[in-house]
Amino acid sequence: MAYPWDTVAIIGVGAIGASIGLGLRQRQLARHVIGATRTSKSAKAAMEIGAVDEMVETMEKAAENAELVVVCTPVQSIAEHVQRCAAAASSEVVLTDGGSTKANLCQALEGLQHGTFVGSHPLAGTHETGPRAGDGDLFRGRTVIMTPVESTPGDTTNRVRGFWQSLEAEVELMTPEQHDQLLASSSHAPHLIASALAASTCEDALRLAASGWKDATRIAQGSVELWQQILRDNRANVLSSLNRFGELLHAMTEALEHDDPALLTQLLERGKQNRDAVGN
Amino acid sequence: MAYPWDTVAIIGVGAIGASIGLGLRQRQLARHVIGATRTSKSAKAAMEIGAVDEMVETMEKAAENAELVVVCTPVQSIAEHVQRCAAAASSEVVLTDGGSTKANLCQALEGLQHGTFVGSHPLAGTHETGPRAGDGDLFRGRTVIMTPVESTPGDTTNRVRGFWQSLEAEVELMTPEQHDQLLASSSHAPHLIASALAASTCEDALRLAASGWKDATRIAQGSVELWQQILRDNRANVLSSLNRFGELLHAMTEALEHDDPALLTQLLERGKQNRDAVGN
Repeated sequence: MAYPWDTVAIIGVGAIGASIGLGLRQRQLARHVIGATRTSKSAKAAMEIGAVDEMVETMEKAAENAELVVVCTPVQSIAEHVQRCAAAASSEVVLTDGGSTKANLCQALEGLQHGTFVGSHPLAGTHETGPRAGDGDLFRGRTVIMTPVESTPGDTTNRVRGFWQSLEAEVELMTPEQHDQLLASSSHAPHLIASALAASTCEDALRLAASGWKDATRIAQGSVELWQQILRDNRANVLSSLNRFGELLHAMTEALEHDDPALLTQLLERGKQNRDAVGN
Repeated sequence: MAYPWDTVAIIGVGAIGASIGLGLRQRQLARHVIGATRTSKSAKAAMEIGAVDEMVETMEKAAENAELVVVCTPVQSIAEHVQRCAAAASSEVVLTDGGSTKANLCQALEGLQHGTFVGSHPLAGTHETGPRAGDGDLFRGRTVIMTPVESTPGDTTNRVRGFWQSLEAEVELMTPEQHDQLLASSSHAPHLIASALAASTCEDALRLAASGWKDATRIAQGSVELWQQILRDNRANVLSSLNRFGELLHAMTEALEHDDPALLTQLLERGKQNRDAVGN
């Protein structure tokens, strides 16, 4: 049988890495899916749920014979891990990642000596973590943003685009800078705001929290370690999104303070319109 | 057959009123459920889904022979509607409501001439509106807060408590002031924050909004007309909750601005702890 890919290496088998492995294996898209991860507990779980054919001790060993390497480690480590994998692999290796920020990463990897890299960000997160949160259909119908730069060979972009599409994702291309600016507004700043909301709710009120509060703060359950890395890596854009949010909140607060129903209504309508436009 | 209640009147057959009617009728808790509402369209829908036995033209007519009247109209109108219903009903009538704010309402109804009133707030909202969003099991396992005041007869409190319990809700008693303070923190301020977040998200980013953003802003889909009334009626408490939120957000923003990972981590942990404590 001819597989679309020969060996695919997955570095980091958290929820995203494990979902990629499951998606590849369930669709028979790769002859061999090989993984490497930090802890033996995660490695064991990834094997148990069938996310990989094999787990190996080091990312270098996983990358050695890989045609494609997908680095799914926390954003702070991705650049280093891509470099280590590239150095261990054949010169034809194609590398990509699953990180939530792109500008610093793509800049750091501009002069990659060995192999070719293109950045990816699947917009299919979950606040659950670890291989057991993996789902082979996680990417179905979801958007994956890819961020090729001028030096990225067209063939690398095409192959990685085909990879995500074979997992049933919709791929969209933009620059790393555009990505980071948009995601600050749609994902990173909202995370910090949801966390501040959860943190500011007094203990007695927590007891009465109903579905509205639970929805509004759900993302604050995400891994603090991962999210502080994302927020710091995309600091300038997040701060500017927070600034925009602060202006709206200030306007609403003032409308309430001055008991101005017309203005309050107008501002709440703006929120409702944006929310309704996105749908369920 | 002996029913727990003879005639129950429901004033306003939106999602909450219709859910009460359905819950009563599905459990055969009332001999006759009679409704009144503003528009003939809602009246027709309430009949079609089986939320009531009968719809009548005016709330006075609905209240006339009722043993219990539940006013489920927008918060701004509840006091007036309770008074009108009380005046039209027998002097033994018990009245309650389903509104999201309690202090002003309970104060306005302190000197009710006719019948007895106790405030209720079922914490079982939905951002969907209208009778067709009704669900006879909406209150199952949910909390209903009741806010008796010094002048409320114990018998009135007991009967209304029994009413909510027969719809399978858990009843909790507190003062109207306590209610408004806690709900500002768990529900009203979060609504305004979610709306500001939705309103501040730039158009290009809306296109990329994934499940995190959707969750965080879901409540902003609620009726603007209803919510501006709630926010204004509970203005002082909402402003003080927003102030608390603003302090947390400011601290997080500063930690990000100064690139202080330890402080940022500590603050995000606080959000995660509160969110984890509430559960799914």
